Amino acid sequence: MSRVRVHNFSVSLDGFATGEGQTLEEPFGHAGGRLHEWFFETRIFRAMQGKTGGAAGADDALARTWNEGVGAEIMGRNKFGPQRGPWEDHEWTGWWGPNPPFHTPVFVMTHHPRPSVEMEGGTTFHFIDATPEEVLRQAREAAGGLDVRIGGGPGVVRQFLAADLVDHMHVAVVPIVLGRGERLWDGLEGLEQRFDIESVTTPSGVTHMTFTRR
Amino acid sequence: MSRVRVHNFSVSLDGFATGEGQTLEEPFGHAGGRLHEWFFETRIFRAMQGKTGGAAGADDALARTWNEGVGAEIMGRNKFGPQRGPWEDHEWTGWWGPNPPFHTPVFVMTHHPRPSVEMEGGTTFHFIDATPEEVLRQAREAAGGLDVRIGGGPGVVRQFLAADLVDHMHVAVVPIVLGRGERLWDGLEGLEQRFDIESVTTPSGVTHMTFTRR
Repeated sequence: MSRVRVHNFSVSLDGFATGEGQTLEEPFGHAGGRLHEWFFETRIFRAMQGKTGGAAGADDALARTWNEGVGAEIMGRNKFGPQRGPWEDHEWTGWWGPNPPFHTPVFVMTHHPRPSVEMEGGTTFHFIDATPEEVLRQAREAAGGLDVRIGGGPGVVRQFLAADLVDHMHVAVVPIVLGRGERLWDGLEGLEQRFDIESVTTPSGVTHMTFTRR
Repeated sequence: MSRVRVHNFSVSLDGFATGEGQTLEEPFGHAGGRLHEWFFETRIFRAMQGKTGGAAGADDALARTWNEGVGAEIMGRNKFGPQRGPWEDHEWTGWWGPNPPFHTPVFVMTHHPRPSVEMEGGTTFHFIDATPEEVLRQAREAAGGLDVRIGGGPGVVRQFLAADLVDHMHVAVVPIVLGRGERLWDGLEGLEQRFDIESVTTPSGVTHMTFTRR
């Protein structure tokens, strides 16, 4: 059975996975790049940017598991872009340029469906207004037996956790206090009972937690 | 200059340092003992209970720094006991029995002062209605040049952090999602800018974070 996975999902000490005030310039609002500095330094991130170099330690090893064996991604509408409500700008095709790093079908959960958008490199964005269970069913079918990644943001990850649909989750706890934004853990009391949890702190100061469903 | 220190302060993944519903039987409310299991296994905790044995690894090493060089403690009224409002039960002298583990003056912050209570073993509880700065001044004087520990609960630690009065803080992040209770981090946006932060995960699964004031 294909697994449902969350990867490289960074949260602050106070549990925020994104800051307040998302804009075109600041996808993570007032958090800026602070939740992902550990990631920017890895070889895998640099490779995704077409660059060489970067650190090849534990941060990199954990980060680069994100795409192995994944055949589809599910993301929330706010991960896709800063527009809210009915789509006004159909030219917007995500933050990632003409060749997004997914290279699979990507299901964008939204109450405002629109036609699918085919990008370079194998990424196709589908827009779908459905329950987590139904979106997952379609993503699984599109993944052709491979795993499905829940790409975020926090609202979508939380929905899939609440519905007990997540098999594997990698969270990176970053030692900053964001104070405001959107929390990952709300409404998930007792989550630890459903997972084996392993934690490791790396020299970057980040604590990586892997949740493996029991 | 004597330092102001916080030790063995456990918080859940979602930032709660105590659960909801404190009672005489459950000082940490619905959290029960879950925030402190790592501590219960240490040699230092067992010694405080008059027992032998226990683990002598990193959890123990970090835990046992709590009392070294400390000459007074400041705690909140809710750490002292479950009563709220005017004191109705003057017989209550804390959760710790006739010989509390502090062995120093202890300043209990409360809007309802009452006479000091002298316990066995050198602990005296003073009840004081004052600002963090004023309580600290009195505690420093009582500590005779030694350090002052902020004992909790979360409201008191937060007040002292907000007032930038804390020099050293040891927080243990426990991989559970409590969902409700009292949070440590609220109102402390940007806290990391005032501290050097070191994190280490131990085999108990807890991530110890030490904050050293810059």
